[in-house]
Amino acid sequence: MYQLNIDKPTLLMNKNRVLRNIRLMNEKARKNNVRFRPHFKSHQSAQVGEWFRDCGVNAITVSSLDMAEYFMKYGWDDITVAFPVNILEINKINRIAKKIQLGLLVESGETIDALRNNITSNVNIWLKIDVGYHRTGISSNNPDLVIKLVKEVEKAEKLQFMGLLTHAGHSYNARSAREIEKVYHESVSHLTKLKNILREKFNTNIQISFGDTPTCSVVDDFSQVDEIRPGNFVFYDLIQRLIGSCREEDIAVTLACPVVAKHPERKELVIYGGAIHLSVAGMEINGKWVFGYITSESSTGWGALREDCYVSSLSQEHGIIKVTDDVMEKVTIGDIIHILPVHICLTVNLLRRFVTIEGEVINH
Amino acid sequence: MYQLNIDKPTLLMNKNRVLRNIRLMNEKARKNNVRFRPHFKSHQSAQVGEWFRDCGVNAITVSSLDMAEYFMKYGWDDITVAFPVNILEINKINRIAKKIQLGLLVESGETIDALRNNITSNVNIWLKIDVGYHRTGISSNNPDLVIKLVKEVEKAEKLQFMGLLTHAGHSYNARSAREIEKVYHESVSHLTKLKNILREKFNTNIQISFGDTPTCSVVDDFSQVDEIRPGNFVFYDLIQRLIGSCREEDIAVTLACPVVAKHPERKELVIYGGAIHLSVAGMEINGKWVFGYITSESSTGWGALREDCYVSSLSQEHGIIKVTDDVMEKVTIGDIIHILPVHICLTVNLLRRFVTIEGEVINH
Repeated sequence: MYQLNIDKPTLLMNKNRVLRNIRLMNEKARKNNVRFRPHFKSHQSAQVGEWFRDCGVNAITVSSLDMAEYFMKYGWDDITVAFPVNILEINKINRIAKKIQLGLLVESGETIDALRNNITSNVNIWLKIDVGYHRTGISSNNPDLVIKLVKEVEKAEKLQFMGLLTHAGHSYNARSAREIEKVYHESVSHLTKLKNILREKFNTNIQISFGDTPTCSVVDDFSQVDEIRPGNFVFYDLIQRLIGSCREEDIAVTLACPVVAKHPERKELVIYGGAIHLSVAGMEINGKWVFGYITSESSTGWGALREDCYVSSLSQEHGIIKVTDDVMEKVTIGDIIHILPVHICLTVNLLRRFVTIEGEVINH
Repeated sequence: MYQLNIDKPTLLMNKNRVLRNIRLMNEKARKNNVRFRPHFKSHQSAQVGEWFRDCGVNAITVSSLDMAEYFMKYGWDDITVAFPVNILEINKINRIAKKIQLGLLVESGETIDALRNNITSNVNIWLKIDVGYHRTGISSNNPDLVIKLVKEVEKAEKLQFMGLLTHAGHSYNARSAREIEKVYHESVSHLTKLKNILREKFNTNIQISFGDTPTCSVVDDFSQVDEIRPGNFVFYDLIQRLIGSCREEDIAVTLACPVVAKHPERKELVIYGGAIHLSVAGMEINGKWVFGYITSESSTGWGALREDCYVSSLSQEHGIIKVTDDVMEKVTIGDIIHILPVHICLTVNLLRRFVTIEGEVINH
């Protein structure tokens, strides 16, 4: 790894894997004839965004208005902010909506009112529907409220009702492709039922927008939806592998960290790489709380995942790795250890800079 | 809060409390005649640093060489990097050591060797001693290794041996002032014993540098140490309050977040404020995993902590707050909710910008 000049915690990217992940998802969307509106919160990089554009992608999803403004600067002109409208940012909404096609999510009459009274350009409005994740959205079991809100949207001249949008985040509780498919089919059946109810009431086209990497990775038939919005798939990570959305060889980014101390008596390595690099997002595996696994060495990027060696705790800049005797013996202070992050989006958000295994620096 | 124009997740600072926290710790150090070398990783702000300088502080601690370079730019010329030396960054070490008085931590012969062979300017060397936290450092029960390493440091012309440094991080397991004091006294007794052993062997001045906010906040008599390095005390947070290091009214920073949705059926508010603002550092309280408490309203900053309303889960940008019926009834979409973070250092690291309750913006 020395030839890459990695001397501090660094996101190392296998660019071929990233390009393959993008290509496969794009092909799946085309084959299904659905709009591919990838979520750019996972990479937050204009340069990575260009790789999507090269595949013909022209519509994107982001998770904040600030992110929308960032990508707007780089020529993206059809952006959905997949987060409930924050009415305090109405000026920013108006600034963006004046220039591009902006999609917004609403789930309450108060927010629709606030938009109607303050919006100055046309915006696309999606009703956020809760199909079982129970984080945000109107319950799919509440068609009366959905009908009421669609009516309110339709009353407002500048609000263009697009349809129903969901993030089936409970797919993250799945632990196999079959469980993921079940979440998808149940969710889509809720949305389709709602759509049919709305069709009887409104003379308008009603689209369905579906999100989340697990379902978009595993399901092949998207004939019931109009748009998919996966994000994490661009890199994948340990959670996705645990769920069953990807294989180990699809994971495209690791965190490369210098070893700064060894404690054989505790079978622990200390790395420069802590909570402000990896993030403290962990997962419980076999009764242990794991913040990441390490990989074996390789002359080309990183090697195979080692489930017997894991990041067991994090301070602001320190990471502690529990290792086996053979790893303890082989590793020297000053070596680079590769960590497969549990939740890559949070790790990327902290560092915002990649180096590819060929040595190309991707700054934003 | 509208008069502060807060429209997205924002660190709100009670500057008077910050100044008081700094003043009290500084006075304590002076009274004890110990060097006050505050840890600047908690605020990472040149402007907040000036408030320390105004009190006469001229030596600081940081947690990375990058942070050392940042503060060096703002005129700080006596900096200890309280992290085990990362030998891969030797060029950066040499660049900094050429210009300022740089303190480094070592805990192994390999690292001392690497420094001796590559260092080009004088640096101060502290042996990192593990007094019970078991994260890094040489065990205080291993005087032979300590003696061996001091000898190796003394052999190297440009390495100036300073003494023994510890971070008694296990003070974070305490739950009362008495428990914190116990950690302090045990830790200092280990260090003093080691110091006495070294004194018999080496004809050199041996200092003791002691860290961590809990002990520095609670202990009054520092006659056995030469230097204290607390950091978090500048703002304090929920963990510190739980431990017993501070009172609620010492906590000087909250995260102000807009409410974007209400779900009375689940007694949940959805706020704009997630893992990339607050960090996913949580703590278990009464069997619940808590990422922060909210406060009641106040016309001057924020009100009293409400232990019955807490951040129960976080996505990248979303926060979910479990609230009581009275809060659910009072809060409207578009209101600002104040969150007391569990671990303020990680929250500050994510946002790096404060607004004081008087409206002053502190950018770095």
